[in-house]
Amino acid sequence: MGRNDFSEPFLLINFKTYLEATGKRAVELSRRIEQVGESFNVRVGVAPQFCDIASVASHVQIPVFAQHVDPIVPGAHTGQIIAESVRAAGGSGTLINHSERPLLLVDIEKSVECARAAGLSTVVCAATISAAAAVALTGPDMVAIEPPELIGSGRAVSKERPEVVSDSVRKIRSVNPDVKILCGAGITTGEDVYAALKLGAQGVLVASGVVKAQKPEDVLLDFCKGIRKYHL
Amino acid sequence: MGRNDFSEPFLLINFKTYLEATGKRAVELSRRIEQVGESFNVRVGVAPQFCDIASVASHVQIPVFAQHVDPIVPGAHTGQIIAESVRAAGGSGTLINHSERPLLLVDIEKSVECARAAGLSTVVCAATISAAAAVALTGPDMVAIEPPELIGSGRAVSKERPEVVSDSVRKIRSVNPDVKILCGAGITTGEDVYAALKLGAQGVLVASGVVKAQKPEDVLLDFCKGIRKYHL
Amino acid sequence: MGRNDFSEPFLLINFKTYLEATGKRAVELSRRIEQVGESFNVRVGVAPQFCDIASVASHVQIPVFAQHVDPIVPGAHTGQIIAESVRAAGGSGTLINHSERPLLLVDIEKSVECARAAGLSTVVCAATISAAAAVALTGPDMVAIEPPELIGSGRAVSKERPEVVSDSVRKIRSVNPDVKILCGAGITTGEDVYAALKLGAQGVLVASGVVKAQKPEDVLLDFCKGIRKYHL
Amino acid sequence: MGRNDFSEPFLLINFKTYLEATGKRAVELSRRIEQVGESFNVRVGVAPQFCDIASVASHVQIPVFAQHVDPIVPGAHTGQIIAESVRAAGGSGTLINHSERPLLLVDIEKSVECARAAGLSTVVCAATISAAAAVALTGPDMVAIEPPELIGSGRAVSKERPEVVSDSVRKIRSVNPDVKILCGAGITTGEDVYAALKLGAQGVLVASGVVKAQKPEDVLLDFCKGIRKYHL
Repeated sequence: MGRNDFSEPFLLINFKTYLEATGKRAVELSRRIEQVGESFNVRVGVAPQFCDIASVASHVQIPVFAQHVDPIVPGAHTGQIIAESVRAAGGSGTLINHSERPLLLVDIEKSVECARAAGLSTVVCAATISAAAAVALTGPDMVAIEPPELIGSGRAVSKERPEVVSDSVRKIRSVNPDVKILCGAGITTGEDVYAALKLGAQGVLVASGVVKAQKPEDVLLDFCKGIRKYHL
Repeated sequence: MGRNDFSEPFLLINFKTYLEATGKRAVELSRRIEQVGESFNVRVGVAPQFCDIASVASHVQIPVFAQHVDPIVPGAHTGQIIAESVRAAGGSGTLINHSERPLLLVDIEKSVECARAAGLSTVVCAATISAAAAVALTGPDMVAIEPPELIGSGRAVSKERPEVVSDSVRKIRSVNPDVKILCGAGITTGEDVYAALKLGAQGVLVASGVVKAQKPEDVLLDFCKGIRKYHL
Repeated sequence: MGRNDFSEPFLLINFKTYLEATGKRAVELSRRIEQVGESFNVRVGVAPQFCDIASVASHVQIPVFAQHVDPIVPGAHTGQIIAESVRAAGGSGTLINHSERPLLLVDIEKSVECARAAGLSTVVCAATISAAAAVALTGPDMVAIEPPELIGSGRAVSKERPEVVSDSVRKIRSVNPDVKILCGAGITTGEDVYAALKLGAQGVLVASGVVKAQKPEDVLLDFCKGIRKYHL
Repeated sequence: MGRNDFSEPFLLINFKTYLEATGKRAVELSRRIEQVGESFNVRVGVAPQFCDIASVASHVQIPVFAQHVDPIVPGAHTGQIIAESVRAAGGSGTLINHSERPLLLVDIEKSVECARAAGLSTVVCAATISAAAAVALTGPDMVAIEPPELIGSGRAVSKERPEVVSDSVRKIRSVNPDVKILCGAGITTGEDVYAALKLGAQGVLVASGVVKAQKPEDVLLDFCKGIRKYHL
């Protein structure tokens, strides 16, 4: 997933702890997401809850991400998430430092290391431009810039605050030329995705815009059209 | 699981994040635990990692517990554990406030409520005698008293510090006559289990004593003998 | 400060981190609070910010409380609050587990111990009825029941939710007959204080109702009238 | 405090929560530190506990730092530290993100902003090389690199792991040419200080090496000799 993978933008759908995406509904939603991705030849991934990773991973071929891993190695820990467990369940990556699960700076670096050691791809989230550059220094596979105030707002970061995306891209690139950059928060339409790609992002991280939609596949289909438009 | 269930002590095995109990090994270990429990007609349960709950629950009939649930209802949370997700994966209960995953006092009560609302049994852990009574006030199904300094020590709380168990039992009973009381920390032999039951516990919570044993089924078998001795 | 100190209800004013009660204004406000207390022969105390404890304590004779102490003994800790430091600055007590500075259950007990060892009185706060009883088990000098949803609301817990106060009093008394009980949240008038005392509280914990008032001494004066009415 | 202030290395003494540096002893120690600094014309500063800031600041002319500030503005917070309060007490700066008081990445940036808005200088600590660069991106006045495993060890980072200091200096400079760089952990002799300056640091952050010394002024005197040697 190098910097120049403009041929394959990445749509990552965070299922959060929405009931609409819990248990069997996580599997069903993942299937539909996979189908739209296949139809449009767009790379998609899902981030279901921990308890759903195994069942989702056994039903789809697309990348399945955890929403978090703890900065720990296997051992005497209770109620925490080791990357090895995510991997064993069929997960292929993980979000780290989502604004709804923020980490100590010192733990971001450790979580990236633990995830990588277990063979997981890493998407480290950041709430601000300088935080985006800061997390890029920890060497993840992807950085996701998400201004918290726009998360779930329906107002897309790529249209409401385009300078946040473009400045993040510039600042991230100055410290890490290779990391893939996603943007998120408020993305609900193909135009929002198109705008994100135009600003230099290589993909989007989206949650409620898809999961809470009446017809998630219609939203995804629109996203794929945004990607197509960008490649024309 | 009323107070007088002395006919059926409960052995709850916490898998923690041990590699020996991750992924397929969680399923395999759970099967062996189930078999010993059946042979001795002793009630056993397992608490695997979140990612393993679904696969364990689909392979055994014994109760499967989560190691933690967050004090939240479904919605826009990332990387957290809703009780509904544990339930949907086949879980029937959860640990809360384990000393390796301690909670704010205010969140213990909320977690118990969230777990109950989702149909999960609750085992709330406490590190001290007065904490044990305090958590008993939140109305869980079970309280587990575990002095952290003995966890993983191989020195059983029921033999090293019997007064902690008996005082906890007395203090818990003074505020909650119905809650089932487990004790844990350092339990490795049938004699430790026997001592715990003699002191008024209705079961034990055990982790490394079983999971890290060379032959976990032999340890469990010894535990079951301790229970039998108690009922003679 | 025994249970039956109805002859001397306690008014404790939490300065929070309000600018109106920071630095010199903390000293000035404390002086005015002391004067009203003296005029009415009502026992009052203040809880300024850490940086202001020394200067406040050197200017007034009334009890000066910290707003929090950490559950640690002196040593290699940075940026934390040891009870010894509060004491050395002239503090005579501390709040613990305020809903704006909640603690792990295990740390509440430790903080009470650390505070007592350093010679500080302890007021442990609780957000719910069962939490109030739970913290009473840790043996503090006072318990303060404060439903967080009413804090700063101007709607007094003693009038909006009198059953919370009376049920807390009953439940606390069942586990600890000696602890002094304060109630707080939304208290702004003498009638609110009167209602609190009628419900079985031995004092009130108040913040914005006094600190953010245009004339704090007028509010306090009204509080003192509420106390007088109660003693008629 | 620009990059090239090699003419004035900065010695910052963190008092932690050592009893040896609590209350009156904080004032006394600060005086002695000030005297040695004056004798050698070396710039020194102290970071006492919050409760001691006011009394220390009223007795010495050297910079007095807080050990932490919270990422909040004044208002309804209890038991937290606003920068305004530190400033009002006479503080002129603050540590942020010490490894004994680590912050969420998102809060480091906010704390720096809050401190600056209140007129405080900022020393943001980092435990690793990439964390040092990451915090430099938040624009503090100084970055302090301190490998936690050497803190309090008596083995100086500048001699045990010189590459950590030099690599940090290089990486910090690549993202922020102006920030002043301190190093810390295990510093106990003038040679340690000399080594730190040779590696590109503009000062040291030290705690137990001075505070727990039998004669703190002798240690400081040795430090000052190390600085002199560097300037020969």
